[in-house]
Amino acid sequence: MRHLTPALAAALLTLAAGSAAKAEEGMWTYDNFPIARANQTLGTNIDQAWLDKVRLSSVKFGGCSAGLVSGEGLVMTNNHCVATCVANLSTQEVNFAETGFTPRTREEERKCPGGTAEILTDITDVTERMHAAGAGLEGQAFTRARDAEAGRIEQEACGDDAAKRCQVVSLYRGGQFKLYTYKKYSDVRLAFAPEDRAATFGGDLDNFSFPRFAIDAAFIRLYENGAPAVTPTHFVWNADKPVEGTPVFVTGSPGATQRLLTQDQLMAVRDVVLPLDQLIASELRGRLIRYSEEGERQAFEAMDPIVGLENTYKRGLGRMRALTDPQFLAMKAEQERDFRSRAEAGAGSNNPWTTLSGVQPTLRELYPAMALLEGGTGVGTTPVAGGSQLFLWARALVRGAQERAKPSAERLPEFADSRLSALQAGLFAERPVYPELEQVRMEWWLSKTREWLTVDHPAVRGLLGKESPEQLSARLIEGTTLADPAVRRALWEGGLAAVEASNDPLIQYLLSIQDETRAIRSEWEAKVQAPTDRASERLAALRFQTYGDSVYPDATGTLRLTYGLIEGSDVPGQRWGPFTTFGGLYDRATGAAPFDVAPKLLAAKDRIDLDTVMNMTVSSDTIGGSSGSPVVNAQGEILGANFDSTVLTQRNAYGYDRNVNRSVIVTTGAVTTALRDVYGMDGLVAELGVR
Amino acid sequence: MRHLTPALAAALLTLAAGSAAKAEEGMWTYDNFPIARANQTLGTNIDQAWLDKVRLSSVKFGGCSAGLVSGEGLVMTNNHCVATCVANLSTQEVNFAETGFTPRTREEERKCPGGTAEILTDITDVTERMHAAGAGLEGQAFTRARDAEAGRIEQEACGDDAAKRCQVVSLYRGGQFKLYTYKKYSDVRLAFAPEDRAATFGGDLDNFSFPRFAIDAAFIRLYENGAPAVTPTHFVWNADKPVEGTPVFVTGSPGATQRLLTQDQLMAVRDVVLPLDQLIASELRGRLIRYSEEGERQAFEAMDPIVGLENTYKRGLGRMRALTDPQFLAMKAEQERDFRSRAEAGAGSNNPWTTLSGVQPTLRELYPAMALLEGGTGVGTTPVAGGSQLFLWARALVRGAQERAKPSAERLPEFADSRLSALQAGLFAERPVYPELEQVRMEWWLSKTREWLTVDHPAVRGLLGKESPEQLSARLIEGTTLADPAVRRALWEGGLAAVEASNDPLIQYLLSIQDETRAIRSEWEAKVQAPTDRASERLAALRFQTYGDSVYPDATGTLRLTYGLIEGSDVPGQRWGPFTTFGGLYDRATGAAPFDVAPKLLAAKDRIDLDTVMNMTVSSDTIGGSSGSPVVNAQGEILGANFDSTVLTQRNAYGYDRNVNRSVIVTTGAVTTALRDVYGMDGLVAELGVR
Repeated sequence: MRHLTPALAAALLTLAAGSAAKAEEGMWTYDNFPIARANQTLGTNIDQAWLDKVRLSSVKFGGCSAGLVSGEGLVMTNNHCVATCVANLSTQEVNFAETGFTPRTREEERKCPGGTAEILTDITDVTERMHAAGAGLEGQAFTRARDAEAGRIEQEACGDDAAKRCQVVSLYRGGQFKLYTYKKYSDVRLAFAPEDRAATFGGDLDNFSFPRFAIDAAFIRLYENGAPAVTPTHFVWNADKPVEGTPVFVTGSPGATQRLLTQDQLMAVRDVVLPLDQLIASELRGRLIRYSEEGERQAFEAMDPIVGLENTYKRGLGRMRALTDPQFLAMKAEQERDFRSRAEAGAGSNNPWTTLSGVQPTLRELYPAMALLEGGTGVGTTPVAGGSQLFLWARALVRGAQERAKPSAERLPEFADSRLSALQAGLFAERPVYPELEQVRMEWWLSKTREWLTVDHPAVRGLLGKESPEQLSARLIEGTTLADPAVRRALWEGGLAAVEASNDPLIQYLLSIQDETRAIRSEWEAKVQAPTDRASERLAALRFQTYGDSVYPDATGTLRLTYGLIEGSDVPGQRWGPFTTFGGLYDRATGAAPFDVAPKLLAAKDRIDLDTVMNMTVSSDTIGGSSGSPVVNAQGEILGANFDSTVLTQRNAYGYDRNVNRSVIVTTGAVTTALRDVYGMDGLVAELGVR
Repeated sequence: MRHLTPALAAALLTLAAGSAAKAEEGMWTYDNFPIARANQTLGTNIDQAWLDKVRLSSVKFGGCSAGLVSGEGLVMTNNHCVATCVANLSTQEVNFAETGFTPRTREEERKCPGGTAEILTDITDVTERMHAAGAGLEGQAFTRARDAEAGRIEQEACGDDAAKRCQVVSLYRGGQFKLYTYKKYSDVRLAFAPEDRAATFGGDLDNFSFPRFAIDAAFIRLYENGAPAVTPTHFVWNADKPVEGTPVFVTGSPGATQRLLTQDQLMAVRDVVLPLDQLIASELRGRLIRYSEEGERQAFEAMDPIVGLENTYKRGLGRMRALTDPQFLAMKAEQERDFRSRAEAGAGSNNPWTTLSGVQPTLRELYPAMALLEGGTGVGTTPVAGGSQLFLWARALVRGAQERAKPSAERLPEFADSRLSALQAGLFAERPVYPELEQVRMEWWLSKTREWLTVDHPAVRGLLGKESPEQLSARLIEGTTLADPAVRRALWEGGLAAVEASNDPLIQYLLSIQDETRAIRSEWEAKVQAPTDRASERLAALRFQTYGDSVYPDATGTLRLTYGLIEGSDVPGQRWGPFTTFGGLYDRATGAAPFDVAPKLLAAKDRIDLDTVMNMTVSSDTIGGSSGSPVVNAQGEILGANFDSTVLTQRNAYGYDRNVNRSVIVTTGAVTTALRDVYGMDGLVAELGVR
């Protein structure tokens, strides 16, 4: 380690080993942020008012994070966070991924189909209500009672207010439940995106690595009633040259960590979950790469899916490496040993380690069917089911119709009243659909499901009948009219009668496979999810007893604050200082994709100060979903946007290791240069108040 | 377990646990076959004369096994063992994979390009010479001295006799060395192959599974001096209905097992070797599947590579499952515990477990570079380097020229004098080359090498320069003339001067990357292979001391004999009797590939006795490479050919588990039916002396 402040070094020495958070470790909730410890560690002086302001300037945008940077709704995030929006707004002829999206006026800013943005306005404790709802119940009854109570709480708090979203968040794996209330913006417009290659220089090869040379930044703007939102609380733009060792805070919504898993649970992830996910993703990658080589149209269609897939895959590789690294596993084992030695005696007969150990053989057995048949429902971890957008829409329509015929509390949780408005927004959005690509993906999914579950699995027989994956996917994609948003809207609004009367082959197909797919989900909920949830809740209680509130909850895709320093890396094989410059970009370029400099960026070379810092690394705790997170100094000024971390940092999913943990940041200086010297975005430069 | 003979049950009870072979466990060498134990276990009465006859009737054919079935050189093996030969003899227009290859006369039998067959005639102990050659040496000097001594022994014994092959075989991981002498046939002709779908019904889905319905059999014929070889020693054809519980022997050349690996070594296979191999194979699979969908030509070109790749991949999946199965791992750990508790005290300071444990971090670090850059050299485990036939030819030409300029003992071992004739046979063979497919494979290899080793790895910089994998692979494949066997022969015969003067871009490319690729190989040999070999030899000595000769060596692709019973399976999720019938085939057919019955087989339905047994399972110990192995009864009659095993049996690579171990056999009855009732091969039927 280097560049420790004296305070940080002291903190590292005084903090105990075991499961309590160490120094910069922790993705903290805003209502339990360790202000004193952060100030002591970093030598800063933040307070509650600072926290409130940072929280209200933090924006959740889809699966990404973002930050308000003007009083007129302007928000900075990563370019990769708007890539799907850019793809949806592009055609093969007018391809903004190639040219960049550079509106000269606000009138030219264009709505991202289905895009929504949210700001966290309130946090309320609802632990007691949630625990009471599940008391005395087991299996699926437990899961459903909890889901129903969460739906009720959300509905009570937000009702049908389209400008709000309410979400019951499970923290500490069920140890606490909080109601998060968001102000919601449903009109989000793209205000700037660079050339894609400027944001992805080095492509998948440089992804999850450093040194890095990527302007992975873009701007969206929040609109209300057709006009830019008024947002007096926002970050101040600071484009000064960053200084090594500066304390920083990163505010965003990290997706999911699994640090509270027991050793037995981690081994199941290593042995069963990751191999399946990675192996089938790798095959899809091969299919899509070859597809993209078949012509310009195919290259255009497959670009966004390939980038997303490769990102997920590379993240998974980092996780596989973590869980097969003897040193890392020894650290995790030692943490569990410490915790068990302190807590297990008090666990009595209701020993959560024993329970979780007993669940793993079932999880190992059921995971393939759950992941393949119910992926993307939010229950399994892998969004593969159907492998196609049309399939996912058809499933939402069929299940939505079936579920809405029941009271909200009895439905599958994703169809509770409180969640319908977000679902509808996605379903009704106008998005391009590429049938050939859809067929490739659906064929892949059917074929992998058949392979992993075997031909003779009853669900596979139900999925395929006498058809092959090739035949079935071709027939369904050719015949469906769900690419038309009006058709989707009509089926949604027509309810079960309309769905059952539809002769759309994809709708009919989804109707025909409900028994098999719902059965595996029920089995999973009863035999895996419910006992896991109950035992995890018990484990959380023991953890609070043992370590007090010095523990932080696993990331859950909700707003968190982390802290650290601007700092390079000194790990063997990964040694570098914290900064890269524009000069380094031009040096690294070979001219061959993905190491070709984007044309406009290349043309601007003479206008750019080559010493301008482009990207930097910080030591704050991070995980996927932190993409776009504002990096803020102790004065609340924004210094950049988190857009990546190193591949070694992927172990962060399972445990924090300060030595290797580094987030990769695109600096406000680089963004300013891009806006001003490359893309001529003078309006935005003025709006940001560039000094 | 079911259908145990009383003798077998007794044997199971009396044999000790630990590392000594149990009951039917063991792929035994012919010079150490436990005749008495086999007879006692099975209730048979075989003797040395029986062993000699079976050995001299056993044929090694490429990576497969086979058996002589007539006095005129006729040999039965699996259809999948002749698939590459069939592909090489086919064109898109005359595609024998579709129609079957059914010569009505011997004159119509066609030579398999590059095909050779061998019969093991002699085994001599050369352990002392080999151990003496390595005495006192370490690192690469040790490896090279051993390789050189093996080359000398082989050359002394076989000289330049084209009708013989000599091979020094390392057994018990260096505990013993034996010189195997083979009679070699270099003119091998295809005498019959069924329609490919008849041999592969169910395709990849039914591969490694049972119940099974595949006529995976074919015939080749050995020729000498342009005439069928005279082979008075051969198996008698017995096409009687097989009987459950019959004792059987399987004779063939199982490829490679790793049962003598320590726990630390197994964990490295699980954590590093298998994930890399499987993940990159999965992506290639995706690329090839999509490629095959682009047109009839592409489908024709990619068929054989896809089948081979899917087979390797599925086998790897079975191995991953074995090494992530807590029960199986507990069994392996217990075996090691038993061995160490008996032997470790006597190991002294030269403790092989400690040594092997110390090697694993280096192996884990170097494996990706070794596998990706030096795959297919016989040193790494994965034949991926180059990903293309043209690349492998170019490497053989360039390295062959460089190495032949040195004395035999100083060369890379695959270029020792004793090994050149086999190498030349492969290099000069006339084989079709599909440039577009070659480009796809080479692009994949370059791209995976860059991804796994990273862009900034010196070897990757050397491989790619400023080009992308797409550009480089297209340029090399487009420009090379190595597809022409005359060009390859001229370069080989022209030696280093010709190679260095060549302006073939692929030759120039291979010349340019020798430094980088040879460097990783040297490092691997010095830091991984040599210390592993030395420690393994020590481990073998301890094993002999501890368990005597009741242990058998790991499979090494050389002739072995195993034994067991005709028997089904009673494992949860894998319950079935030992037989399937032609009736079952027609029942399972859906009409959609790969569950479509081959046209001629379908047309013959009325001529076939539907109760004829098609496939069966036996309990003998098996592994890949056993494909085509004759299944023989105690009278030395052939009952079928081994063509597969179940996916659970793949754990056989690491340890024998009698409960799950089952080989899948195509019966002589099924083959007789196919020859007589489907394909009208009356000549062969008469030659086999069908009763």
